[in-house]
Amino acid sequence: MTTKKLDFSISVLGEAKISSPIMMSTNQNDGQADYVSDDDHILFGIDTDIDEKGHPVPRHEETVEVAGPRAKIYFNPAHVHAAICTCGGICPGLNNVIRAVVRCFWYRYGVRRISGVQFGYQGLLENSPWPLIPLDPDVVDDIQEKGGTILGSARGGGKQVEEIVDSLEKLNINILVTIGGDGTLRGAYDIYEEVKKRNLKISIIGIPKTIDNDLSLIQSSFGVDTAVQMAVPVVRSAHVEAKNSIHGIGLVKVMGRESGFIAAQTALAQSDVNFCLIPENPFDLDGHNGLLEHLRRRLLDRGHAVVLVSEGAGQELLPPSSELDASGNVKFHDIGIFLKDRINEFFKREGIETNVKYIDPSYIIRSAPADSYDSIYCARLGAHAVHAAMSGKTQALIGLLHNRFVHLPIKVAVSSRNHVDLEGSLWRDVLENTRQPFSMKNFKFD
Amino acid sequence: MTTKKLDFSISVLGEAKISSPIMMSTNQNDGQADYVSDDDHILFGIDTDIDEKGHPVPRHEETVEVAGPRAKIYFNPAHVHAAICTCGGICPGLNNVIRAVVRCFWYRYGVRRISGVQFGYQGLLENSPWPLIPLDPDVVDDIQEKGGTILGSARGGGKQVEEIVDSLEKLNINILVTIGGDGTLRGAYDIYEEVKKRNLKISIIGIPKTIDNDLSLIQSSFGVDTAVQMAVPVVRSAHVEAKNSIHGIGLVKVMGRESGFIAAQTALAQSDVNFCLIPENPFDLDGHNGLLEHLRRRLLDRGHAVVLVSEGAGQELLPPSSELDASGNVKFHDIGIFLKDRINEFFKREGIETNVKYIDPSYIIRSAPADSYDSIYCARLGAHAVHAAMSGKTQALIGLLHNRFVHLPIKVAVSSRNHVDLEGSLWRDVLENTRQPFSMKNFKFD
Amino acid sequence: MTTKKLDFSISVLGEAKISSPIMMSTNQNDGQADYVSDDDHILFGIDTDIDEKGHPVPRHEETVEVAGPRAKIYFNPAHVHAAICTCGGICPGLNNVIRAVVRCFWYRYGVRRISGVQFGYQGLLENSPWPLIPLDPDVVDDIQEKGGTILGSARGGGKQVEEIVDSLEKLNINILVTIGGDGTLRGAYDIYEEVKKRNLKISIIGIPKTIDNDLSLIQSSFGVDTAVQMAVPVVRSAHVEAKNSIHGIGLVKVMGRESGFIAAQTALAQSDVNFCLIPENPFDLDGHNGLLEHLRRRLLDRGHAVVLVSEGAGQELLPPSSELDASGNVKFHDIGIFLKDRINEFFKREGIETNVKYIDPSYIIRSAPADSYDSIYCARLGAHAVHAAMSGKTQALIGLLHNRFVHLPIKVAVSSRNHVDLEGSLWRDVLENTRQPFSMKNFKFD
Amino acid sequence: MTTKKLDFSISVLGEAKISSPIMMSTNQNDGQADYVSDDDHILFGIDTDIDEKGHPVPRHEETVEVAGPRAKIYFNPAHVHAAICTCGGICPGLNNVIRAVVRCFWYRYGVRRISGVQFGYQGLLENSPWPLIPLDPDVVDDIQEKGGTILGSARGGGKQVEEIVDSLEKLNINILVTIGGDGTLRGAYDIYEEVKKRNLKISIIGIPKTIDNDLSLIQSSFGVDTAVQMAVPVVRSAHVEAKNSIHGIGLVKVMGRESGFIAAQTALAQSDVNFCLIPENPFDLDGHNGLLEHLRRRLLDRGHAVVLVSEGAGQELLPPSSELDASGNVKFHDIGIFLKDRINEFFKREGIETNVKYIDPSYIIRSAPADSYDSIYCARLGAHAVHAAMSGKTQALIGLLHNRFVHLPIKVAVSSRNHVDLEGSLWRDVLENTRQPFSMKNFKFD
Repeated sequence: MTTKKLDFSISVLGEAKISSPIMMSTNQNDGQADYVSDDDHILFGIDTDIDEKGHPVPRHEETVEVAGPRAKIYFNPAHVHAAICTCGGICPGLNNVIRAVVRCFWYRYGVRRISGVQFGYQGLLENSPWPLIPLDPDVVDDIQEKGGTILGSARGGGKQVEEIVDSLEKLNINILVTIGGDGTLRGAYDIYEEVKKRNLKISIIGIPKTIDNDLSLIQSSFGVDTAVQMAVPVVRSAHVEAKNSIHGIGLVKVMGRESGFIAAQTALAQSDVNFCLIPENPFDLDGHNGLLEHLRRRLLDRGHAVVLVSEGAGQELLPPSSELDASGNVKFHDIGIFLKDRINEFFKREGIETNVKYIDPSYIIRSAPADSYDSIYCARLGAHAVHAAMSGKTQALIGLLHNRFVHLPIKVAVSSRNHVDLEGSLWRDVLENTRQPFSMKNFKFD
Repeated sequence: MTTKKLDFSISVLGEAKISSPIMMSTNQNDGQADYVSDDDHILFGIDTDIDEKGHPVPRHEETVEVAGPRAKIYFNPAHVHAAICTCGGICPGLNNVIRAVVRCFWYRYGVRRISGVQFGYQGLLENSPWPLIPLDPDVVDDIQEKGGTILGSARGGGKQVEEIVDSLEKLNINILVTIGGDGTLRGAYDIYEEVKKRNLKISIIGIPKTIDNDLSLIQSSFGVDTAVQMAVPVVRSAHVEAKNSIHGIGLVKVMGRESGFIAAQTALAQSDVNFCLIPENPFDLDGHNGLLEHLRRRLLDRGHAVVLVSEGAGQELLPPSSELDASGNVKFHDIGIFLKDRINEFFKREGIETNVKYIDPSYIIRSAPADSYDSIYCARLGAHAVHAAMSGKTQALIGLLHNRFVHLPIKVAVSSRNHVDLEGSLWRDVLENTRQPFSMKNFKFD
Repeated sequence: MTTKKLDFSISVLGEAKISSPIMMSTNQNDGQADYVSDDDHILFGIDTDIDEKGHPVPRHEETVEVAGPRAKIYFNPAHVHAAICTCGGICPGLNNVIRAVVRCFWYRYGVRRISGVQFGYQGLLENSPWPLIPLDPDVVDDIQEKGGTILGSARGGGKQVEEIVDSLEKLNINILVTIGGDGTLRGAYDIYEEVKKRNLKISIIGIPKTIDNDLSLIQSSFGVDTAVQMAVPVVRSAHVEAKNSIHGIGLVKVMGRESGFIAAQTALAQSDVNFCLIPENPFDLDGHNGLLEHLRRRLLDRGHAVVLVSEGAGQELLPPSSELDASGNVKFHDIGIFLKDRINEFFKREGIETNVKYIDPSYIIRSAPADSYDSIYCARLGAHAVHAAMSGKTQALIGLLHNRFVHLPIKVAVSSRNHVDLEGSLWRDVLENTRQPFSMKNFKFD
Repeated sequence: MTTKKLDFSISVLGEAKISSPIMMSTNQNDGQADYVSDDDHILFGIDTDIDEKGHPVPRHEETVEVAGPRAKIYFNPAHVHAAICTCGGICPGLNNVIRAVVRCFWYRYGVRRISGVQFGYQGLLENSPWPLIPLDPDVVDDIQEKGGTILGSARGGGKQVEEIVDSLEKLNINILVTIGGDGTLRGAYDIYEEVKKRNLKISIIGIPKTIDNDLSLIQSSFGVDTAVQMAVPVVRSAHVEAKNSIHGIGLVKVMGRESGFIAAQTALAQSDVNFCLIPENPFDLDGHNGLLEHLRRRLLDRGHAVVLVSEGAGQELLPPSSELDASGNVKFHDIGIFLKDRINEFFKREGIETNVKYIDPSYIIRSAPADSYDSIYCARLGAHAVHAAMSGKTQALIGLLHNRFVHLPIKVAVSSRNHVDLEGSLWRDVLENTRQPFSMKNFKFD
């Protein structure tokens, strides 16, 4: 329960005085799409508490600015040089976002200088070997049919803030749209601060990308729906493998470092998962309430089992890791291989023949083209990013909240993480579907 | 803008006094899923208006009851005979809902008499040739992998309310879960009224099914996401056909009698649609701002075009129809064939060779198994329906609002239709994507 | 049983004297791929008859030349201007063939002038508005991921032989690869004759394209496998629709004007088809052994049925058509709509409620990208066409016979049609699978 | 080149005297499917040699018996107890074969005792904990829509021949259809020998199952087409991953212990593979013509690369393994992980940043349901196995040769392996497509 009141006000570069070239209406009921006003807000929270009279009253009073095209814009389209970069691991929908950004700049605002930055922030470093890629509607035509990003993506570079802002200056970039996760957005905030310090008129717009869906405030992130669509047949494969061999165990690892949304949704999306393991819900391997004992009972009872594990689940069972990846995140041990080995050992010890089939579909999932849900989501994210930038917003993240596109301050958005709530309805429904115990920890009093 | 205040209070059969057999927690922060209380409400509306001080204030004050398992239930599971029926046209996800309902009754509440009613309300008529189908987890195992409904579905029967309630009495059914659209839910309301008149303790729970997504209050209906996923490759086929022939025109018709959501979302989900025609946006064929003239310009300019049309679009162009279908809906003329003929005539007259390729994928779309998005949605809808019924709610529709499962009074839910808002952001983004004119009507002053 | 001995000898433009730039081996057992020699032949027929001593002896003595790269080539790659055209309706795999042809010319032989002819032979007519498209590996990169053909395709033009050869001369084209069906190949033969008459050194190579699989001598044509892969889920949709409604009948029409291979293979590929109707097997509608009576029995017995019909089946039941399409083929009546109407009438007359769901997936099937089977097939067809052309073969069709790529004289290849043999094993196995009567004709003596 | 003449004569249990209950014709040209006669043979080989007069003459004179229903059968259907078992690893199409076998026995011959043996030969051992599963058309309805085998599959058991034949006797099984690979078929041959020794009238019929496609004499084995269909998008994923990261390398391992058909065909089916490594073509890692050097050049030139490796490729680079699996096959080292490590080491040493993304989709591929090609193939294999058994054939393998279903003696079929011919046209076309060097071995004289 959030108690601190959040400040959702959006920064602007200055007053938007130029009439938008997009032909829209300011009147309702004329059958024509309307501009969005900075006054258009939605409620941040929909939960209520019961007041003393027994009536439900809103728990939160914060409101959030609605995204969309403004009647007045800040930048003269003829003066705009917009740049886009994609950072971190790939995720379904990146090309869709790029395409939407380019098309909205080009067709709606008439911007003609749009550049793609290669390999994330690294493409903006002083010694980057990768030139900017000029983008226009022809270049981005059909790119959404392929997975990944035509710009390439890489971790790192986000700490060299001064170097990046130097490059923005040298390249006369006045709009930077960055697509990335937690680390990328922190970088974007730092760039915004440096830009402000230098008193530059550069709009920094973020589009949140996290296949783990672990950015709070944001309703399910783009790519997550596709990830679940891709994970479902893999779990079905694991189930077929499990059912077809003597005491077969299908073990599948999916993305999810700190938040188990992909695993939880996949377990709900189909019926074959018996144990869904997520980072939010620590479990024991051994002991009478541990995973292995539950697995043993399941095998003897039904002959086969499917285990779906998030990459970040059970890390407490593993020796601590000190390796860091290029983004500075701790490199995780492979929980899938660890579980496979421990399961094999356990059943060998128990004298029970088993056949563990371990599948790691992560790269197959990440590299898929967006499904239609994410295609729509990304098309709209991209367009809203452009509208935000052109109207002079900055340090603004384009988010989806209660199915509406909104502007969120990047700083607020990265200040907390989104987790599967073990006491909430999603996880409750997962437990109903898998019929696994709500906890596989051995308690002292047992 | 809704001005009349809606009454979202839910009817109950009586006080729920029995402790739920579902083991859940009533404490937060114990890591175990929590029961939902009747006090748990969310805000109905998230829009705000600006007050005199310039601050955004909520536009609506209504709240809606949150769905989920209650700590106390009304029915003794041992006394329950639950029945399920699926009405109207088929839609992706029906089997998922049936499966979830059966599993939740069986595994969570221990209900052992669950019956499937065949062919909608017709299976409850006095002379129905179709017996009830006994349902249990084995029967519904894996049914979600197939499209359609294992119970069969049919229109009609909903007017014979007394006969249906007679059957419920004779069959000792005390929970009826009906899955269907507008007409079905009106029938459910009438059954509820008749049940109340007879002072029976039968819970009537509705699950909204409308592939057209035209039930207001309800966030996107189940099956719609799958429908769009299925429609996208068909539009791509139409595009390939169009591009590969001389002045090729790909013409695709999708579902949408009064609301063009499937067409609008499909047009956003990919990039090949040039003209998206929906019932909400009437258009002219002829005249300098008519569809045919725009098509002519597109063909001469680019050589090919894709037209995506909702079945209910352009009905005003067609001679009035008086035929009714089994549900009493007016049978529509086939706008697809009509457009095909008119386009062919027009270009023949203009002396321009064209090749119109018309595709009607409706049956392919309707009969698809649910994608993962709808699978999750349906699994949860079904479980929530059971929780509502067991706790003694009646005349309650299980809806999704701001991504939360809620209870809505059926009567309120069917009182208005959901339409694509021509001035809202969805249609605005469609127009940005297709780059079609916002109106293809010829105005007097032109 | 073929009795006339066929002459499979291949025409050549002249002696091949130039050493091939492809580095291959002429020695076996050196681990390196070998050139193919004109002496490499395979047997045309594999059937045997029993001789007087009771031993099986080959029924045919003809042999066919094996395709592949020759050690000596006829054309100097630096002097080659190769052209490719795709004719007739689209078919999965066209882009794969184009891509393979371009890459083999470019990478293997170093040919640098490769042109795409737009819209079939029409692009070679004197007044064609469509210029040649210069082709190279970059242009054709990834085109195989899309259905259709990047060159566009059209019927007609094949009769203006002199005009086409004039164009070949003017454009200095010395290799023409045409991809098309029966009509296209007859055109190619006429072009070859005209080229010979003028004593030109232009190689005319054909690649057979017939989604109906009706070219005799050629083992299953490219695109057919994909067509069946695409048809299967459509039949499954029809089955779901049929099962889910009262006396539902799913009716699906697939390609097959004179040969019912797609229908037959689709019926074998899955289990839902009850009646497979093909052009080779005429049937009655009425009478005690007619389709309608069999359908009636099936509906009363099982409640639902699936009918799969080739477009050319049952044409004898329809009024004669005199309309011709652009290729000069008789335009068929739509057997699907005809059957739908007749079935509806029949059951109305019989007083039996039915729900006929008619699906015509033809455009969806034709426009699909090639599956992996056809991708491999097309990649190899294209390469073999180039090898044939470069070695100076002409009037040569690249065919697959007993899973080997061979050269066939175009004239021989188009001299007869391929049909489903009603007494052969394919149709026998279809009947076993559908369990339909082997004939639905009423005989006099009945 | 085969020089030893093979003996393809098929063993029979005795004279077939009973008229077949299948209604077929013995006359040609009556429009009704015909019985197949034991005299119907096809030529084993289609290759020719050139005789002294320069004419091509058949290289082989052997002929092979054509499979199919006989007019006279050996077993009285009322006395038949048929059993089916599936052995070894799973493979797409197993359920299709089971279904076809059951349906053909049941519907065509009226056999009513059909049993499924669980977990391969192990289900026939004396102490097997798994009972026979009674099979009928209802049990096998729709099983083909799932991957794997409803009977379960396991390696081993094939050596306990006497125990198995004891079980056959006790269970009164007089037809045993075994579906499996090399080891399974050797077991089947031993069972046949033991049956003969005991003078029992039990027909032993084999259906070849090898996803590696390594059984010689048999044209591409069932499941291989599906395997390639499944592998293609995985390679595409690897390509996306490779292109999207700095010096990205996508590395995919597919099945293929001793024969690289899946890898070769996958490399031909699409365009992203740069290095296809198969067991038949040993390669060096180091040295100027080794894989690593070629990879380095590719990365520096193009920035990314895709390597596709058969599981059995490069085993000579690995330390010898002595572990055996349950079938007695040597357990291979994981060439994928080995290559990943060696590539990483190499580029680290070279100071070149790389990102290797390794994907092992084996379980996903194996467990897929059959595509339409394999569905047709399996439906027909199953039916032909039943026809063979009913007519009293034994020790007979149902094979596909030149696209015809034939009977082969099991003993001959397992006597040699099928390999990718490095000098043949398949591998030649792979090299053309990947443009990799024909050898990556360093030769002494270099």
